[in-house]
Amino acid sequence: MFIKNCWYVVAWSDEVPDHGFLTRTVINMPLVLWRDSEGRIIAFEDRCCHRAAPLSMGRQEGDCITCMYHGLKFDSTGSCIEIPSQTRIPPQAKVRSFPLVEQHKWIWVWMGDAEKADPSMIPDTHWLDDPNWASQDGGYIHYDVNYLLITDNLLDFSHLPYVHPTTLGGSEDYAKKPAKVERSDRAVKITRWALDIDPPPFVQKAKSFEGKVDRWNIYDFVLPGILIMDSGMAPANTGATEGTRKDAAQFRGCQAITPETDNSTHYFYAHPNDFVFDKKTVAEIHKMIAVAFEEDREIITAQNRQLELDPDFTMLPLAIDSALSQFRWLVDKYVAEERKEKSNVA
Amino acid sequence: MFIKNCWYVVAWSDEVPDHGFLTRTVINMPLVLWRDSEGRIIAFEDRCCHRAAPLSMGRQEGDCITCMYHGLKFDSTGSCIEIPSQTRIPPQAKVRSFPLVEQHKWIWVWMGDAEKADPSMIPDTHWLDDPNWASQDGGYIHYDVNYLLITDNLLDFSHLPYVHPTTLGGSEDYAKKPAKVERSDRAVKITRWALDIDPPPFVQKAKSFEGKVDRWNIYDFVLPGILIMDSGMAPANTGATEGTRKDAAQFRGCQAITPETDNSTHYFYAHPNDFVFDKKTVAEIHKMIAVAFEEDREIITAQNRQLELDPDFTMLPLAIDSALSQFRWLVDKYVAEERKEKSNVA
Amino acid sequence: MFIKNCWYVVAWSDEVPDHGFLTRTVINMPLVLWRDSEGRIIAFEDRCCHRAAPLSMGRQEGDCITCMYHGLKFDSTGSCIEIPSQTRIPPQAKVRSFPLVEQHKWIWVWMGDAEKADPSMIPDTHWLDDPNWASQDGGYIHYDVNYLLITDNLLDFSHLPYVHPTTLGGSEDYAKKPAKVERSDRAVKITRWALDIDPPPFVQKAKSFEGKVDRWNIYDFVLPGILIMDSGMAPANTGATEGTRKDAAQFRGCQAITPETDNSTHYFYAHPNDFVFDKKTVAEIHKMIAVAFEEDREIITAQNRQLELDPDFTMLPLAIDSALSQFRWLVDKYVAEERKEKSNVA
Repeated sequence: MFIKNCWYVVAWSDEVPDHGFLTRTVINMPLVLWRDSEGRIIAFEDRCCHRAAPLSMGRQEGDCITCMYHGLKFDSTGSCIEIPSQTRIPPQAKVRSFPLVEQHKWIWVWMGDAEKADPSMIPDTHWLDDPNWASQDGGYIHYDVNYLLITDNLLDFSHLPYVHPTTLGGSEDYAKKPAKVERSDRAVKITRWALDIDPPPFVQKAKSFEGKVDRWNIYDFVLPGILIMDSGMAPANTGATEGTRKDAAQFRGCQAITPETDNSTHYFYAHPNDFVFDKKTVAEIHKMIAVAFEEDREIITAQNRQLELDPDFTMLPLAIDSALSQFRWLVDKYVAEERKEKSNVA
Repeated sequence: MFIKNCWYVVAWSDEVPDHGFLTRTVINMPLVLWRDSEGRIIAFEDRCCHRAAPLSMGRQEGDCITCMYHGLKFDSTGSCIEIPSQTRIPPQAKVRSFPLVEQHKWIWVWMGDAEKADPSMIPDTHWLDDPNWASQDGGYIHYDVNYLLITDNLLDFSHLPYVHPTTLGGSEDYAKKPAKVERSDRAVKITRWALDIDPPPFVQKAKSFEGKVDRWNIYDFVLPGILIMDSGMAPANTGATEGTRKDAAQFRGCQAITPETDNSTHYFYAHPNDFVFDKKTVAEIHKMIAVAFEEDREIITAQNRQLELDPDFTMLPLAIDSALSQFRWLVDKYVAEERKEKSNVA
Repeated sequence: MFIKNCWYVVAWSDEVPDHGFLTRTVINMPLVLWRDSEGRIIAFEDRCCHRAAPLSMGRQEGDCITCMYHGLKFDSTGSCIEIPSQTRIPPQAKVRSFPLVEQHKWIWVWMGDAEKADPSMIPDTHWLDDPNWASQDGGYIHYDVNYLLITDNLLDFSHLPYVHPTTLGGSEDYAKKPAKVERSDRAVKITRWALDIDPPPFVQKAKSFEGKVDRWNIYDFVLPGILIMDSGMAPANTGATEGTRKDAAQFRGCQAITPETDNSTHYFYAHPNDFVFDKKTVAEIHKMIAVAFEEDREIITAQNRQLELDPDFTMLPLAIDSALSQFRWLVDKYVAEERKEKSNVA
């Protein structure tokens, strides 16, 4: 049910210590992440090939890990190089290692065929460590729902005034503005403009606009669930819609939705902005976003509970569901293709 | 597995506030109960027709509810009258509304075809608010077992001296008295007399009988699981069996067993009596009943645990099981009929 | 999935009181254990034949148990001898009683055909109450994993230096010594010698060897999961390998792995020794063993979690797995035979 040949965000860089392990499950695969002696991050399946004991309970010895159940030792490629009780090492004695990229404070892992892993497919998130942008690191939420209910939520911002009336929300007029939806090969692009409206409370706190604003949300929602958002607002009628962003307050939100299991999900996020740099205000904006995301988690978790009571519930598609329908269509397409490939190979 | 075309008790009247929501699940259907501006109670499926978000997390606006996920607004019949993001409202945009009757402090809901909902099928429980009878409101227990294990228990009172030796129980002779069982179209009637016995402790506390009593339990156990019980006792040999109830202590117990899910159940109850009216003693009787019902819950929950370890366990039918066998037969019959009707329609 | 025609350890003798009940589930069967008026232990299925209420919530009356749901009374053979509400007692009115042997402080129960129960099949554990050996009673651990992951662990001691480096462990050289494995009809025998090595910390504490030791572990692992271990050490090169055990420190570990359910297990154990008798040191040895067994529980429980994430995980067999493969082969063989017998009968 998950796409495998794609890059998932698995952790913030600083979650993986210089010495020691981080464990995290991605699309039902338990991973152990660790750094070799040069600081390079490695991701192994967190199961010894012998009897599935977690390597994360093992011992790092230089660039190797020793399983602490029966002493098998693996090098940084995952090949077993020592079995205490025997001299011959069978060729199958290795643990799976996953392609990794550490970039702009995030760690990306490739869960499919290693040969197909192409780092150029990773969306640009350079705002996370660009000195011209300010954000707080470490944004993370854990959900006990399937990831598609979360991507649904993010693919339709008409929920803003209802779920987030006092945080992200603003007036209900915002929900009435139609969004433009364009599907490309591996992404859905959503463009929404709201002209001549009141600025939302959380921005107004940091940058006092004197009057109405033109507000935009332009984002790419890339497979498997990466949201790169150009959002912001400028004083109304100063040409924002034509590309002028004078006196604007801009964000480049980066959000990554990573399935943990069929019914649980990791959610990584940060909200770089270009108009507030003092740490305290940046922390306040982050805090407000965290509160808003908790509001999402509450309604989505409740929605999930109601769906679990009736797995046959049929949703009623509305015009606002266009983007999420397109995105679900893309997910289904790639899952089906990978399944087909696999059955061709077998 | 549940009968749908019948009235279930869903709540005590005072559980539904003047403004705000009560949520309760009945036969796996999540319901939201609320009052319109005239105080009439309404029961909706607690799932927005759009994406299943619970309406109980929404906002009451006069006689309407607005879903707080994407702003859909429903009138008191369940029809959607507003979708913020579009002008056209599709005809399927409505939430299911369930027929309701609020009567004698209980709220009854009809879970099947609305056209068949006939209020005259609701059993009489007027003792719950009749000034000639006294009881304490709000009796409620939650069970983590299928409802039939509870109806089984209530359909055979020979358990009284064993499960309730110090509360409802009395002597073990009581278990030996045979009960008369009569099945009608939608109910089982049980009549049990125990003559010339000691009064049970909980009655003796409130009304001191000087000698032995004649005790009766005459009750209708009506589909889907409503127990209306005429019980009590009078001094022995004063003609109670022929209808004279001089110096008697009488109860009209009202109990409603409402399945929540396949494996959990709501239990509403009250015990109106005609011989004690001071609040303190009425509360004491209620408390004692609550303690006794907790004794039932303990043995039934334990029984359920043992059955879960072996779903193939075969029960051994005894003579005392006549009433509960008849009742289970009725349940099976109506469930089968409804299934047949449904497949004929489809 | 479990062998039925075999003896399982169900409890320590002193867990069953003189009056009252012990409940314990063995291979998914809930049991109630109690003593008759002469102190003999009886094991019944802990479900009344009537409606499955647990007899352990009942009342012992001399050599009988009365179910406290509806008053059925059973004699010490499990036959129903009284039904309060009726005079005729149907012949099927009985609860299943299981063959039992109480011996050397352990209670053994036979879960299969009573006719086949042969006490001579019970392994010798007389060290548990032999005055020439000292041990602390009551060793017990509860596991939330299938029992085979535990028997796997006990059938390969090469894990000692990795899982128990500071308790049972000793040097990693120990893991490198090959074990001799012999399969018999209902058991696997494992013999492992480690010559001229350092004594492990927990023995050294109690009996200070001056130099290196020759260490042995010779154990029978008997179906369904009984480990009887002759282990110990003697000063190196004093003839231990030829049978001389001069100045040795010897143990006769007795361990019993009893499945509770498909995914949980009882573990009974004691470690009689012949070289330390003062209570304090015996308690210290027991404590150290308990700590070590907790180390096993930790890694096995983690292993189980990783396997649950991928039920199709294929283990990689190594030379050290010979004994556990043989044992699993035996289990499979007897389970298959019993299944075949059953289908022949049916």
